[in-house]
Amino acid sequence: MPMVPVAPDVFHVYDTTLRDGAQQEGLRLTVHDKLRIARSLDDLGVTFIEGGWPGANPNDTAFFKAAADGELKLRNSQLVAFGSTRKVGGQASSDPLTRALLEAETPVITLVAKSHDAHVYRALRTTLDENLAMISDTVKFLTGEGRRVFIDAEHFFDGYRANPAYALEVVKTSADAGAEVVVMCDTNGGMLPGWMGEVVDAAGQVGVDLGIHCHNDTGCAVANTIAAVDAGAMHVQGTINGHGERTGNADLITVLANLQLKYGWNIVAPDALAKVTATSHAVAAITHVQPNTRQPYVGHSAFAHKAGLHASAIKVDANLYQHTDPTFVGNDMRMLVSDMAGRANIQLKGEELGYDISDRVQAAEITDLVKEREAQGYSYEAADASFELLLRDALGLSEEFFEVLHWRVWTGNEQGEDGDSEAIVKVRIDGETTKLVGEGFGPLNALDQALTGALKAKYPAAETFDLVDYRVRIMDQGHGTDAIVRVLIDMTDGSRTWTCVGVGTNVIEASWEALYDCYRWGLSTPAAG
Amino acid sequence: MPMVPVAPDVFHVYDTTLRDGAQQEGLRLTVHDKLRIARSLDDLGVTFIEGGWPGANPNDTAFFKAAADGELKLRNSQLVAFGSTRKVGGQASSDPLTRALLEAETPVITLVAKSHDAHVYRALRTTLDENLAMISDTVKFLTGEGRRVFIDAEHFFDGYRANPAYALEVVKTSADAGAEVVVMCDTNGGMLPGWMGEVVDAAGQVGVDLGIHCHNDTGCAVANTIAAVDAGAMHVQGTINGHGERTGNADLITVLANLQLKYGWNIVAPDALAKVTATSHAVAAITHVQPNTRQPYVGHSAFAHKAGLHASAIKVDANLYQHTDPTFVGNDMRMLVSDMAGRANIQLKGEELGYDISDRVQAAEITDLVKEREAQGYSYEAADASFELLLRDALGLSEEFFEVLHWRVWTGNEQGEDGDSEAIVKVRIDGETTKLVGEGFGPLNALDQALTGALKAKYPAAETFDLVDYRVRIMDQGHGTDAIVRVLIDMTDGSRTWTCVGVGTNVIEASWEALYDCYRWGLSTPAAG
Repeated sequence: MPMVPVAPDVFHVYDTTLRDGAQQEGLRLTVHDKLRIARSLDDLGVTFIEGGWPGANPNDTAFFKAAADGELKLRNSQLVAFGSTRKVGGQASSDPLTRALLEAETPVITLVAKSHDAHVYRALRTTLDENLAMISDTVKFLTGEGRRVFIDAEHFFDGYRANPAYALEVVKTSADAGAEVVVMCDTNGGMLPGWMGEVVDAAGQVGVDLGIHCHNDTGCAVANTIAAVDAGAMHVQGTINGHGERTGNADLITVLANLQLKYGWNIVAPDALAKVTATSHAVAAITHVQPNTRQPYVGHSAFAHKAGLHASAIKVDANLYQHTDPTFVGNDMRMLVSDMAGRANIQLKGEELGYDISDRVQAAEITDLVKEREAQGYSYEAADASFELLLRDALGLSEEFFEVLHWRVWTGNEQGEDGDSEAIVKVRIDGETTKLVGEGFGPLNALDQALTGALKAKYPAAETFDLVDYRVRIMDQGHGTDAIVRVLIDMTDGSRTWTCVGVGTNVIEASWEALYDCYRWGLSTPAAG
Repeated sequence: MPMVPVAPDVFHVYDTTLRDGAQQEGLRLTVHDKLRIARSLDDLGVTFIEGGWPGANPNDTAFFKAAADGELKLRNSQLVAFGSTRKVGGQASSDPLTRALLEAETPVITLVAKSHDAHVYRALRTTLDENLAMISDTVKFLTGEGRRVFIDAEHFFDGYRANPAYALEVVKTSADAGAEVVVMCDTNGGMLPGWMGEVVDAAGQVGVDLGIHCHNDTGCAVANTIAAVDAGAMHVQGTINGHGERTGNADLITVLANLQLKYGWNIVAPDALAKVTATSHAVAAITHVQPNTRQPYVGHSAFAHKAGLHASAIKVDANLYQHTDPTFVGNDMRMLVSDMAGRANIQLKGEELGYDISDRVQAAEITDLVKEREAQGYSYEAADASFELLLRDALGLSEEFFEVLHWRVWTGNEQGEDGDSEAIVKVRIDGETTKLVGEGFGPLNALDQALTGALKAKYPAAETFDLVDYRVRIMDQGHGTDAIVRVLIDMTDGSRTWTCVGVGTNVIEASWEALYDCYRWGLSTPAAG
């Protein structure tokens, strides 16, 4: 039986997606984005939500104002403002940044403090004693104002390596001044799990609650966090989806799932843990960062099985091949359709979608068809709706809603009031031909307008269809502007969301194919199963 | 000083990108792809390259044939064929799959064997003794044929937990039959680093060389691998970029860099280690999987600095903020341009590109311009060339090559022999107006043809420009088909590759903007610096 440490009486799950996570390259969060993310973190039930650095940038200041004005009603979590210790040679009570922290009106304030002597000398350009005074003065002032104060000890592990006595002095000074938790930060992410214990033990001697903040530069952010917890840390910092500067922060979802499912600690309620997949996707949608399909626990592929070897055995017992039950984290076991797939996978996938393809010959034909299409560049793994349409066609179950006879689109650099593009779509519905013109911003929008116009009389549902996401990927890099592109379109009718794929050298034609299939799937009757 | 174990005399870096890595959802490798990846692995100097499962699928069989026919000349690595132990109740000598392993003509063969009693009963549907006989018989037969044999002990850690005696019996039987290395596989990826030592120690008692094969389902694949090495494993399996089924395998790049840079073990030559960034990008290009910008050591963002807080201090001493020297792994330290960037970042970025923007007022103006453009959806972090053009315009250094007066493009579902799209581009060069028509497959290709045609007389270089990659991303999800899209185009002239960005509701217009900037940048004279 593997070693499982005893859960501490008090355990903090501290999210810094809105502050440290927002440091990620290409990430930009509006106040509205931050409010939405904070709400889903509160739903998940993290202990603390670090909202940003008031006073350091207008965006963060505006976020805390919005929160204080009642735009953010937290039911489970506490809001934290992040800042630094007061300026060299100044006074906390008169430091404008310290005042900004108070004005953020949060119950908790986290202060970043230097704990590596070289950083005190070369970045702060002051003495080791003045750095300690800055910590002590700022912590005392803020606790005196009735705030709970946590200390982020920056570069703590390198600092301990270079000058252990001083690093520990920083911990002691923080604790003596009234800091509730001292967070050991592996700021440059260079640590390994085997190296955590010694340092955390030493800090533990000071006798203050310890936290851990890790970055993923050695690919060990989660493992380093767990190692610190094994050594006694009772406060873990991280970000949703591991967002953060450089290689990112510890993924709080993975840390939480590991502690709850592998250690059996009841940190959040089981039904809250089952929300982490939704939380992960919500944050991905808000940040516009493509979700990592291989993300532990919550990734789209995290419980997806492909290899023919497994597929047959999975029929016997799924738990032989899964390290945990995907439903615990709100994810699903999935069978994949792919050109590596044997008939077994196609049959399982068919059952999953509610179709009976137990007939071996029929299943083999469909498998060949899938392989052929994937050789052309289609990918059904990413487009379940397109696969279902292919399945229906093969099984003779496809419904004929409309036939497209012709389409054409014009676009240019002249902006009209209804757009810069015009499309003509000619369709036949019940033997009756309709030709409709669509105008729009961009050719896809113009085609969409024309198609909806042509369909809505007969199929009112078509008007409810909305595009959620649109991705274009060039298939053969280096091939030039006439390369083959794959287009994926996610569409929704408000309740369901589905994905279709289109392929071609013409990005518009490929987009049209995906759009056309999205309409076909959206209009068709769901399968029995 | 952190604990560093002594390096073993013999250490194996075993790559399974071509076999286990190829199990990743959405991944498809042709024989040609596999040959190209194997060559770059050989350049990197891994000890073993597992090429696939001969006999299990035609693609892998063809790969080994191509390799045997001399299409793959390995200078540093040894090729490995993967397969399973012989069928229940059969004989290795007459098992078709075992024969296929011999016909692959590799010096090394790795056999997957069951080591978890429940898998023997429920997946193999045989007795524990027959499973041992299958291992012994197959290993003896293949070693008898002069092959080195490694055993992948499947589900070893769960197996040890369920029935330690039997799991160890599998190790002993393999060793007694002549297996050189027994690889402990965490097949479902559920292990944590703190749990590795006990199991590895127990297996070590058998007295055979041990290997480790980890999956990333708890986000600890790299850490679990290192923990097994700490406990005595001398053979690490993994994949480039951590490709693999579900959450993927241990990223061999991260494992190698950690052992070489953190433990100081000389596993590959320093100049080989400096190739890992190139290897990672080459594999990403071949697999068509978007590189993970946050990948440890080799990711585009792995050494990128954004926060204004750091930017100024980094001027003082970069090593204060980096856990290792990026050049050791062939990567670079980068300063990011972003709406979070202060003037300091913009100035550093300018210097990096060879422009002097020490003038504070000018730098502030440029910073404001960048913020404004990024608010519209542009991202200069991803498009250095567009940023340089913006910089040149602001500094009055931009060269006027041509002026676009008008463009228009038609596309539809009728395929002509020269394409399905026609474009007109009207440009003015040196006061002279040229109007050219381009035909092509897709509107971008047609526009590209027309533009090249209009420019080549005056600027022959234009003909050498080729599109390398083309990415489209919708900016505001859920906004419908008239949403704002961001287009990134990578272009090359054979020696240099550069990226430009375009933004708009019209995917073609945004593509045109990026294409137009790509031509402008490609034609302009490089900066002094």
